[in-house]
Amino acid sequence: MRWAVVGNSDNLAQRLLNGDKRALARALSKVERGAMEGQQLVAELFPASGNAHIIGVTGSPGTGKSTLVNALIRHWRSQGKRVGVVAVDPSSPYSGGAVLGDRIRMSEHTNDAGVFIRSMASRGTLGGLSRATGDAVTLLDAAGYDLILVETVGAGQSEVEIAKEAQTTVVVEVPGLGDDVQAIKAGLMEIADVFAVNKADHPRAQQTALGLRMMLDIANHAYLWKPPIVKTIATRGEGVDKLAEAIEQHRQFLAESGQLAQRQRKRASDELFRVLRRELFRQLRERVGDDYEAAVARIAAREQDPYSAARELLERPES
Amino acid sequence: MRWAVVGNSDNLAQRLLNGDKRALARALSKVERGAMEGQQLVAELFPASGNAHIIGVTGSPGTGKSTLVNALIRHWRSQGKRVGVVAVDPSSPYSGGAVLGDRIRMSEHTNDAGVFIRSMASRGTLGGLSRATGDAVTLLDAAGYDLILVETVGAGQSEVEIAKEAQTTVVVEVPGLGDDVQAIKAGLMEIADVFAVNKADHPRAQQTALGLRMMLDIANHAYLWKPPIVKTIATRGEGVDKLAEAIEQHRQFLAESGQLAQRQRKRASDELFRVLRRELFRQLRERVGDDYEAAVARIAAREQDPYSAARELLERPES
Repeated sequence: MRWAVVGNSDNLAQRLLNGDKRALARALSKVERGAMEGQQLVAELFPASGNAHIIGVTGSPGTGKSTLVNALIRHWRSQGKRVGVVAVDPSSPYSGGAVLGDRIRMSEHTNDAGVFIRSMASRGTLGGLSRATGDAVTLLDAAGYDLILVETVGAGQSEVEIAKEAQTTVVVEVPGLGDDVQAIKAGLMEIADVFAVNKADHPRAQQTALGLRMMLDIANHAYLWKPPIVKTIATRGEGVDKLAEAIEQHRQFLAESGQLAQRQRKRASDELFRVLRRELFRQLRERVGDDYEAAVARIAAREQDPYSAARELLERPES
Repeated sequence: MRWAVVGNSDNLAQRLLNGDKRALARALSKVERGAMEGQQLVAELFPASGNAHIIGVTGSPGTGKSTLVNALIRHWRSQGKRVGVVAVDPSSPYSGGAVLGDRIRMSEHTNDAGVFIRSMASRGTLGGLSRATGDAVTLLDAAGYDLILVETVGAGQSEVEIAKEAQTTVVVEVPGLGDDVQAIKAGLMEIADVFAVNKADHPRAQQTALGLRMMLDIANHAYLWKPPIVKTIATRGEGVDKLAEAIEQHRQFLAESGQLAQRQRKRASDELFRVLRRELFRQLRERVGDDYEAAVARIAAREQDPYSAARELLERPES
């Protein structure tokens, strides 16, 4: 029966639900391209999603995030859980599994039906990437993966935006990075549910963990959830079981405290916002036609400021 | 005469044009808050802008960007040029000069009428920060600063977005960073007009410079402008004159090749886009009222997908 529907895109959603990885890969490509077909797939599969635990993993370059994610995959696979990974690189125009590190990782899991890894990169705007990532998570969720990791390459605002869509956000730190990185921590502190201090065999690992604890204590005295700080050595798999345990405890906390519903609402709100914003601009662009380029030319020539130009375009009557 | 207008916000624009730093600081605060008053100021001062050379400075954490910017300020000041700096930190919720490094830098230049440094951070969305940064550049430009540096803390997509609004983008690299950083370089390669290899006393500096040159040669054979690679030791001020020279040469190239007009058009287009996008969403939000929250609730409960919900809101008739 299965062979009969291969190549029939009408059945792509059904094949994805049946666990067909090739169908999932094709669906993800449609979503990544931002095609109307991708939107229809998401709409169709949306009711089947909502069961996975979505975990964001972020941290500065050089912290060993990818190695840690790989160690987590192995841990969960040993427990029989199905794991999906969306590796997001907002700074790269390459995509579709072309990121070097992910190719290597994929080769490790290529024969494992319980693992699916997909790279996504920024083909256009950051907003487009966030939307595509959200849609990819929905598809993996519908496809029945128990845990979905959203891993970002860097730790800038864009990565943070993407990672915080997750239900549980893991921030990876390493001992002994410079002052600039400390500044970035300020932004990461707010979104971390679990900290991993990786490369914990570094002489300053204990100091880094203590520093994080102090920053957390200063930042928030009133938290219901106190982010645990787990020391790991990803290359040797050490501490990975404790990290997985901390992630699972956070999921339980979310469910019991009612915060899971709150995070789902936040994610729903973000998704609606992104779809609307894109569609609103598309409609305006279509309505005003060449007047848009004329406005740009006036601004570039300093004949009109952007605010006045925008007002004129918005006040233009429907034709 | 000047004292007579102090505290009169109607004359804020005039005082800013007269070189009053307190007026500039107040105007920047209005712009950063996104207040209507800020928009009016930008509209009013827009015709007086367009003379400065706008220089983006970006690079990974730990590359010594801030020290390099400081060295550049000293260099240009010794030539009698007026320098404005907008230091952007998309990952931090703090702003208004509260970033530690900038406080230190400001104290060095606090009595120098020819230098103005302003920190901006992300109070809300990244889009909001980009808009505020663009407006801040317009105000510094109108206030007569010859060179305006837009410095970002990290090197994620958001920093890249902000930095590429500049006419000349300087990407700061250092020898001996890890593989993750190499991946980020792919994104930075595309926007760099000038490379600075800082900490050039590192044993691998020459290797880093050669690696960059090779990547550039692979990436683009057809460039009219071949990005120079300048080795610097910012802490000792070494190579800073050469870096300033490379930046100036790029400005001349832009002017002579006609690409300056092209970049101004791109910036105009980005600014119009941001203003429109924000205003379009605000209008929709106002029009649909509580239906918006109802749609979010349906999505969160998986009763409706984001695309269908968006379509319903967009098709709602005007009331």
